[in-house]
Amino acid sequence: MADIVERLIEVLGPGAVQSEDDISPDYTHDEGLRSEATFPLAVVRPATTAQVSEVLRLADGQRVPVVARGRGTGLSGGAVPVAGGLLVSFDRMTAILEIDLENSVATVQAGVTLEQLDQALAPVGLIYPVSPGESSASLGGNVSTNAGGMRAIRHGVTRHHVLGLEAVLAGGQVVRTGGKFVKSSSGLDLTQLIVGSEGTLALVTEVTVKLQPRLGHSATVLAPYPTLATVTAAVPRIMSSGVAPLILEYLDELTMTAITRSAGLALSIPDEVRDGAQAYLVVVLESTRADRLDEDVAGLAGLLGDLGALDVFVLPPAAGSALIAAREQAFYVSRSAGADDIVDAVVPRAAVPDYLAAVGDLAVEAGALIAGCGHVGDGNVHISIFQPDPEVRSRLLHAIMRTAHGMGGAVSGEHGIGTAKRAYFEELEDPAKLALMRRIKAAFDPHGILGPGRMLSDEAR
Amino acid sequence: MADIVERLIEVLGPGAVQSEDDISPDYTHDEGLRSEATFPLAVVRPATTAQVSEVLRLADGQRVPVVARGRGTGLSGGAVPVAGGLLVSFDRMTAILEIDLENSVATVQAGVTLEQLDQALAPVGLIYPVSPGESSASLGGNVSTNAGGMRAIRHGVTRHHVLGLEAVLAGGQVVRTGGKFVKSSSGLDLTQLIVGSEGTLALVTEVTVKLQPRLGHSATVLAPYPTLATVTAAVPRIMSSGVAPLILEYLDELTMTAITRSAGLALSIPDEVRDGAQAYLVVVLESTRADRLDEDVAGLAGLLGDLGALDVFVLPPAAGSALIAAREQAFYVSRSAGADDIVDAVVPRAAVPDYLAAVGDLAVEAGALIAGCGHVGDGNVHISIFQPDPEVRSRLLHAIMRTAHGMGGAVSGEHGIGTAKRAYFEELEDPAKLALMRRIKAAFDPHGILGPGRMLSDEAR
Repeated sequence: MADIVERLIEVLGPGAVQSEDDISPDYTHDEGLRSEATFPLAVVRPATTAQVSEVLRLADGQRVPVVARGRGTGLSGGAVPVAGGLLVSFDRMTAILEIDLENSVATVQAGVTLEQLDQALAPVGLIYPVSPGESSASLGGNVSTNAGGMRAIRHGVTRHHVLGLEAVLAGGQVVRTGGKFVKSSSGLDLTQLIVGSEGTLALVTEVTVKLQPRLGHSATVLAPYPTLATVTAAVPRIMSSGVAPLILEYLDELTMTAITRSAGLALSIPDEVRDGAQAYLVVVLESTRADRLDEDVAGLAGLLGDLGALDVFVLPPAAGSALIAAREQAFYVSRSAGADDIVDAVVPRAAVPDYLAAVGDLAVEAGALIAGCGHVGDGNVHISIFQPDPEVRSRLLHAIMRTAHGMGGAVSGEHGIGTAKRAYFEELEDPAKLALMRRIKAAFDPHGILGPGRMLSDEAR
Repeated sequence: MADIVERLIEVLGPGAVQSEDDISPDYTHDEGLRSEATFPLAVVRPATTAQVSEVLRLADGQRVPVVARGRGTGLSGGAVPVAGGLLVSFDRMTAILEIDLENSVATVQAGVTLEQLDQALAPVGLIYPVSPGESSASLGGNVSTNAGGMRAIRHGVTRHHVLGLEAVLAGGQVVRTGGKFVKSSSGLDLTQLIVGSEGTLALVTEVTVKLQPRLGHSATVLAPYPTLATVTAAVPRIMSSGVAPLILEYLDELTMTAITRSAGLALSIPDEVRDGAQAYLVVVLESTRADRLDEDVAGLAGLLGDLGALDVFVLPPAAGSALIAAREQAFYVSRSAGADDIVDAVVPRAAVPDYLAAVGDLAVEAGALIAGCGHVGDGNVHISIFQPDPEVRSRLLHAIMRTAHGMGGAVSGEHGIGTAKRAYFEELEDPAKLALMRRIKAAFDPHGILGPGRMLSDEAR
């Protein structure tokens, strides 16, 4: 085993390999609530695709497990190292290779962060609209989990923007999939298969994404509602109205209080409205033109009133941005408050009221406190669970996931399965599909070195 | 072999199985220009998923090849039977199982046609926006080829609308993928893998698609241009303007003349404009509001003028619809005119001018006449080739495809590889990716009974 570390140092140079006491603790965990720090055999930090290829050739030859890491901002343990394995970190592969204005696409190395890409795109009037709430995340990591975020309601998730990839297969072979075009019917879609595969099929080294024009005008509307059920019931009506929001989030009262307090944000909601509000809807509209935005906001405000809002506030731009920024911190606020786990289930959007009611009942039964918010237009809810007893919590989480499945949903809308949600996923997913996924995995990675234990448990592989 | 036909008759009933002289010639071909009619061992017309499962169980057990057929409207030979194999036709699986207004999704059996679905959706104000130009095509067939069409520029292609599938694996196992939600990070995306797999991985029995609100107002704008190069060079500018067209098509002069003549359509373009026009741009805009549509049309007209249009015509609604309908017939007009083959290549949209220039040069060298139109905003061009000598034509097509690949494009933007484009695909595609596709195919279909010779040649499988 030491042999591979020596070979890696020879090939990549000593600065690119950390082993034993040299390993920075930063590389031993992700941001997941329950991820346990694990030290790998070595952290490898390649600078080029050729180096990634060389790393995988060596690892595959010696059957050494390999875990990929973008920026370690994931929440499901996907980037947590395997003891005795390599952690391949993409934090040195940070080149924006091309911003192609004529084709509205960008090609970046896997370690480029969302923030870095956004800063490069702003001056040319373009945007990569996927916004999973953590701008220090890497594009490669986003591809791996098929990251979503608040703007998915309008723009879709990562997979809807990825046009092509460069990826390294387990044996070191480099392939390029897709290209600078939005449509193709030329063979199996390897791009879409690799997106969301959580590092279990190949290591992604380059990503080509579709870009959108950056619109000039946006407005944030905040509507308090008397109950959670009235908020969530309003959502299908808003979606079918044709208003096409950029963001459509619900927050329960606990979450709203926590995030605004944490951000030091005063929204000037009168006390009598606040006292009657158990939940909030936050809607962001966007337009190419200020006059159309104003009309759309007026139309939306009327609609929200008709749908039972206690009041409708059109926030001044700074307050609107601050509220969205505060919402993006909801996970961290919840973690600071001592949340023990987080649910990222997705259900059909019209099932959200019933789902949240059922989850509420399950939490009461389990003596757990819950707080929630989420991408309600997509049926994707994030529920923080406060219940320190691991056994009680595990039973509760299984029940919550089973309920989502029973309503036609899935275990994860955007965080991925990783190691954190694998038990729920494997319990609930059709064994025929799990077996098929294992066979597909083997088609890419015959020796099972890539991301062992992520998405699918290691044993039967 | 006769044994399996008897068993199929026992299981499905005699009305559901055609063999020998009973086989209707309709089932022996698709609409491809070069597809050769082939009689299968039997045509099987299941009415339920359970019957499809039973057919595959029998076929897999006896290693009998199976080709799936939606409505036979494909252009790449994908649904042409294999001699000695079964043709499984979905023309009896035509139930619209659910139109779910709350979640804006529809679930249909694979044999439901686009026209049938559209008629069911119009009264409830919803639309399935994918429009590949042949409304008698089935949803199952569209899934198989990842069909595109004119509205892809705005709404994307089939894969962007398919949320879930029911599919039968080669051994008869029925799986359900995805669901009534637009985002998921829960395991490998089997839905996206099966979309576009041309019946080589599984037989699709049910399709769940996302629906959109049906907008009330649309306008068709026609702009003649002096040269093909000025039209295609205008496209990136139009796309980056933020105008977001529903349709953005180019037609060369030959195609425009042929389709309008065939449709008996007089567009009232003054002779002096027509005489100077070598190509046309057709743009359809759509809006929720008439006033915004008018503003957008005015803005577009100005932009097209700035981008070199000889004139800009806003067509009256009836003429606009008639022109789009005529454009949809371009393939059939071209076939009637004696076209020998059709190219469906895709290139980065900014490469279209260079690509068409190169194709023009190649055609001249080969003594071939060409006529073209296509989804220029997507970089997807359809070029009819008139060159009766098969050897000369084959060399020309290889050169045309190689040119597309060399510009970062792909062999097919929407028609699929099938059998018709397989030689080009296998010549140009990376052997490592072809090998990977074969291994994925084997993960689904270990005995290689599904769609033999489609997409990938049969031998090395």
